[in-house]
Amino acid sequence: MIWQARFQAIRSNKMFEIFIIVIIITSALLVGVKTYQVPEWVSNGITLLDWAITAIFVIEITIRFLAEHPRKDFFKDPWNIFDTLIVMVSLIPIENSDMALVARLVRVFRVLRMISIVPELRMLLNSLLVALPRLGYVMALMFIIFYIYAAIGSLLFEKINSELWGDIAISMLTLFRVMTFEDWTDVMYEVMEVYGWSWTYFVSFIFLTAFAFLNMVIGIVVNVLEEEHEKMKDDNPEQISMKQLHLEIQELKGILEAQGKV
Amino acid sequence: MIWQARFQAIRSNKMFEIFIIVIIITSALLVGVKTYQVPEWVSNGITLLDWAITAIFVIEITIRFLAEHPRKDFFKDPWNIFDTLIVMVSLIPIENSDMALVARLVRVFRVLRMISIVPELRMLLNSLLVALPRLGYVMALMFIIFYIYAAIGSLLFEKINSELWGDIAISMLTLFRVMTFEDWTDVMYEVMEVYGWSWTYFVSFIFLTAFAFLNMVIGIVVNVLEEEHEKMKDDNPEQISMKQLHLEIQELKGILEAQGKV
Amino acid sequence: MIWQARFQAIRSNKMFEIFIIVIIITSALLVGVKTYQVPEWVSNGITLLDWAITAIFVIEITIRFLAEHPRKDFFKDPWNIFDTLIVMVSLIPIENSDMALVARLVRVFRVLRMISIVPELRMLLNSLLVALPRLGYVMALMFIIFYIYAAIGSLLFEKINSELWGDIAISMLTLFRVMTFEDWTDVMYEVMEVYGWSWTYFVSFIFLTAFAFLNMVIGIVVNVLEEEHEKMKDDNPEQISMKQLHLEIQELKGILEAQGKV
Amino acid sequence: MIWQARFQAIRSNKMFEIFIIVIIITSALLVGVKTYQVPEWVSNGITLLDWAITAIFVIEITIRFLAEHPRKDFFKDPWNIFDTLIVMVSLIPIENSDMALVARLVRVFRVLRMISIVPELRMLLNSLLVALPRLGYVMALMFIIFYIYAAIGSLLFEKINSELWGDIAISMLTLFRVMTFEDWTDVMYEVMEVYGWSWTYFVSFIFLTAFAFLNMVIGIVVNVLEEEHEKMKDDNPEQISMKQLHLEIQELKGILEAQGKV
Repeated sequence: MIWQARFQAIRSNKMFEIFIIVIIITSALLVGVKTYQVPEWVSNGITLLDWAITAIFVIEITIRFLAEHPRKDFFKDPWNIFDTLIVMVSLIPIENSDMALVARLVRVFRVLRMISIVPELRMLLNSLLVALPRLGYVMALMFIIFYIYAAIGSLLFEKINSELWGDIAISMLTLFRVMTFEDWTDVMYEVMEVYGWSWTYFVSFIFLTAFAFLNMVIGIVVNVLEEEHEKMKDDNPEQISMKQLHLEIQELKGILEAQGKV
Repeated sequence: MIWQARFQAIRSNKMFEIFIIVIIITSALLVGVKTYQVPEWVSNGITLLDWAITAIFVIEITIRFLAEHPRKDFFKDPWNIFDTLIVMVSLIPIENSDMALVARLVRVFRVLRMISIVPELRMLLNSLLVALPRLGYVMALMFIIFYIYAAIGSLLFEKINSELWGDIAISMLTLFRVMTFEDWTDVMYEVMEVYGWSWTYFVSFIFLTAFAFLNMVIGIVVNVLEEEHEKMKDDNPEQISMKQLHLEIQELKGILEAQGKV
Repeated sequence: MIWQARFQAIRSNKMFEIFIIVIIITSALLVGVKTYQVPEWVSNGITLLDWAITAIFVIEITIRFLAEHPRKDFFKDPWNIFDTLIVMVSLIPIENSDMALVARLVRVFRVLRMISIVPELRMLLNSLLVALPRLGYVMALMFIIFYIYAAIGSLLFEKINSELWGDIAISMLTLFRVMTFEDWTDVMYEVMEVYGWSWTYFVSFIFLTAFAFLNMVIGIVVNVLEEEHEKMKDDNPEQISMKQLHLEIQELKGILEAQGKV
Repeated sequence: MIWQARFQAIRSNKMFEIFIIVIIITSALLVGVKTYQVPEWVSNGITLLDWAITAIFVIEITIRFLAEHPRKDFFKDPWNIFDTLIVMVSLIPIENSDMALVARLVRVFRVLRMISIVPELRMLLNSLLVALPRLGYVMALMFIIFYIYAAIGSLLFEKINSELWGDIAISMLTLFRVMTFEDWTDVMYEVMEVYGWSWTYFVSFIFLTAFAFLNMVIGIVVNVLEEEHEKMKDDNPEQISMKQLHLEIQELKGILEAQGKV
C-alpha cells in the first residue's frame, strides 16, 4: 500500500528520530521542572506542553504501528509494547486529586522512552539483563544466608529492639543495612549489651556475605572474559588447529614414504 | 534385596525429590511465620505442621539410608551426616521453656537442607569452600596486622575509652569497625584529642588492610583465571604442542635427505 | 636564528627542567603554608616569594614560547595553553579584598603545573581521559536511573522532608548519598514512617546502581585487557598464523605429488 | 670449624624452628594477656616469662649469627637485621614508668618475628612490597588531587568549621574521611549552608578519587596478569614459535625443489 510505504519513509527518517528524542528530553525536563515551585502561568504552560507531548507520542506510535508489516509484528518487540503502554496510560483523563499523583508518576516513566529509542542504551540494558540469570544460584545462596540470619535475629533479638528485629522481613532489612556497613556497630552494640557474644553473629554475617558477593563479582568477570574469548575465536572461523597441522604433516610423511618405496 | 531396590527407586524418583523440596520450603516458611505475632489457632497449626515435617524428614532420611548399598557408605557423604544430625536434633522432645529457644533455632537450620538437596547450590558451596584455604596466608598476615594494631591500641588508648580499647579482643572488634569505615572518624577524633598524631595510627591501618584486602581479591581473580585456563586445556587433551610439530617436520626432513642420497 | 637556538638549548637543558620543578614544588608548599596562621614577617615573605615565582614562570613560558618553531605551534599543545593561562591570571594585580580570595585560588591551581611538567603524570592523566568516553553510555544509563528515582522521590517524599526531597536536584544529591551508603537508613526510616513500603524504593535503587556500577567496572577491565592483548600482538608483527602454515604444508604436498607423478 | 658446623645443624633442625615459632606465639599471647586486668601473681609470671623469652631470642639470634659463614653475610639479610634490632631493644633495662610504655610497645613488635620466621609470610610480604612502586605515579597523582582540594577547602571553608578545615593537613584528613564516605554528607551539608554550590566540590572530589582508585586497581590486575603470563611462558623455555615452524617448512620446500631439479 502507498500509505504504508509513506509511513515507513517517515519512520526511518533521521529527522523524525531526532525530533522524537528532542520531545522525550523535553518531557523529561518537564518532569524535573514540575518538582520546583513555579508561578501559576508556568504551571499552566507545563500542563499544555504535557498534552502536546502526549499527542505527539500518540501520533508517533500510530505511525510506527501503521508502518509495520504485517501489523501484528509490532507487538512482538517488547519495547513497542512498553512504549504503547506508557503512552496509553498518559491518555487516561484524571480529575480526581488522588489519581493526579499516579498520573504524574506515569509521566516520570516516559523518561524511560529514552532507552527504548536510543539503540546503544537498549543494547546496554539487554546485556545487563542477560547477565542476571547467571547470578541466579549465588543470589539464591545469599537469600538463604539472609533468611537464616534474619530468623535467628528475630528469635533472639526481638525483645531488645522490635523496630530492628520485629519479624523476619524487618530483620532482613536490618541485615541488608548491616551488609552495607550503615551504622552496623550501633545495631551490634545495642545487642551486645544483652548477649555479650553476639558480635560473632554480626562478624560472621559480614564475612559470609562479603565472601559470597566477592565470588559473585569474580564469577561475572570470568564469565565476561570467557565470552570475549569465545567471540575472538568466532572472528576467525577458518582457524586451523594444531591437530589438523599434525595430521597434514603425517599425510606428507605417508606420501614421502610411499615414494621412497617406489 | 527387593526392599533395597524399591527404596532406590523411590530415592531416584523425580516426584520424591520435588516433594522433599516443597517440604523444606514449607519448613522455611514456617520459620519465618513464627517470627510474626499470630493468633493461637495458627500457632497451634504451626506446631502440628512442624511435627509432620519432622516425621516426613525422618522417613526420607530412613529411605535414603536403606537405599544406600553398602549402608555404611551413607555416612561417607558429609551432607548425609549433616541432614541426619539436623533431623535427629529436631526429634528431641523439649518441655522446658529455656530449651524451647534452642529447639526453634535448630528448626531454623533446617533451611540449610535446601543447600544439601539442590545439587547446584551444593556445588557452589563446595567451590566457595575450596577457595578458602588459598586465602590462608593472606588471612594470617591480616590477623597479625590486626593483632599488632589492637595491642598498640589497647596499650595507648585504653584510658581514653575502655569500651572501645579495653582489652585486645575489644580493640580488634573496634579495628574491624574501622576497616568497614563505620563511624571510624568518631573513634579517631576521640583519640586525637589526647594524642594529636594518632591519625597516623588509623590512616596507616586503613592503608595496610585495604592493601592486603586488595591483594587477596587479586590473588583470587588470578587463581580463578588460571584454573579456567587449566580447564580449557584439559578440554582438548589430544592437543599437539608446537614442539611436537617441530619434531615431526624434522623427521620429514630426515626422510627427504635420506631419499636424496639414494 | 641564533636566539631561537639558544632558547631551545635552555628548554632542553636538564638543569632548567629540575629548576622549574623545584619552583613548582615551592609554589605548592607556599599554598599549603598560607593555610596556617603565620606571623606577619612570614606572610610578607610569602607574598614576596609569590611574586618571584610568578616572575620565574613568566620567563619560563616566554623561553618555551620563543624556542618553539614555528611559534604558533606552541598553542597546539593544550598543556602549553593551560600553563600560559595559569601564569597569565596570576599576573592580574588585585587590591580588592573580594578578589584576593580568587587570586589565592588561582595560585592553588599552579600545583597542577606539576602534572604538565612531569611526562609520566601527563601520560597517566591522558590515559585516564581516554578511558572516560567508553564509559559514556553507562553514565547516561546511570543518569536516567538517578533522574527517574529523583523525580519519583520528590513527587512522593517532598512533604516528608523538603531538605532532602525538595526538588529534583536536591533529590539527586540525596540519592547520590544513598548510593555511597552514607546514613542511607536514616533517610529511609524517615520515609518509611509515612510510606511503609518505601524500602522497596531504596533497596531497588541500591541494587540497580550497584549492578550498573559493577558492569561499568567489568567493562573497563575487559577493555583494558583487550587493549593489552592488541598491544602484545603488535609487538611481533611478523607473526605467522596457523592458516599460513597450513597453506605452506599444502604447497609442499603439491610439490611432492607432482614429483611422484614424474 | 667444628662449632660452626654444630650451630648450622641446630639452625637447620626442624625441631629448633618449631620451638622458636612456639616461643614467638607465646610472646604474642603474652602481649594479648597483658591488655587484660590480671591478678598480681599472673602479672609477675608474665614479667618472668617475658625475660625468659628475651633470653631465648638472644640465644637463637646468637646461634643464627655464629652459624652464618662468613659472619658478615648475616647482616645482608634485612630480616636478620630486623630480628636483631627487635631483640636488642627488648634487652635495654627500663625502670622509668614513662619508658615502660615504650618497652611494652617494643614487645608488641616481636609478633612481627612471626613473618620473619615463616617463609610463606615473608614471601607474601615481599610480593606486596614489590607491588608498591608500580603504584607510584598514581599515588603521586592522587596526592596532587588531595593537595589541591585541601588547599581550596581550607581557603574557602576555614571560617565555617576550623576543626575540619583549619589548615591544609587537617583538610587532607577531612578529605580522606570524605573518600571513605564516612559521614561525608554531614561535612557537606554544613558547608552548603554557606556556599550553596559547594556540593560540586564534594561530588567532583568523590568522582575524581574513585576514578583514580579504580584505575589503580585495574592497573594492578593487568600487571599481575601480565606477570603470570610471562611466568607461564618461562615455564616452557624450549617453546617453538610459529615463525620457526614456518622457516623449517620453507627449508623442507627448498630440499624438495632441489631434489625435483635433479
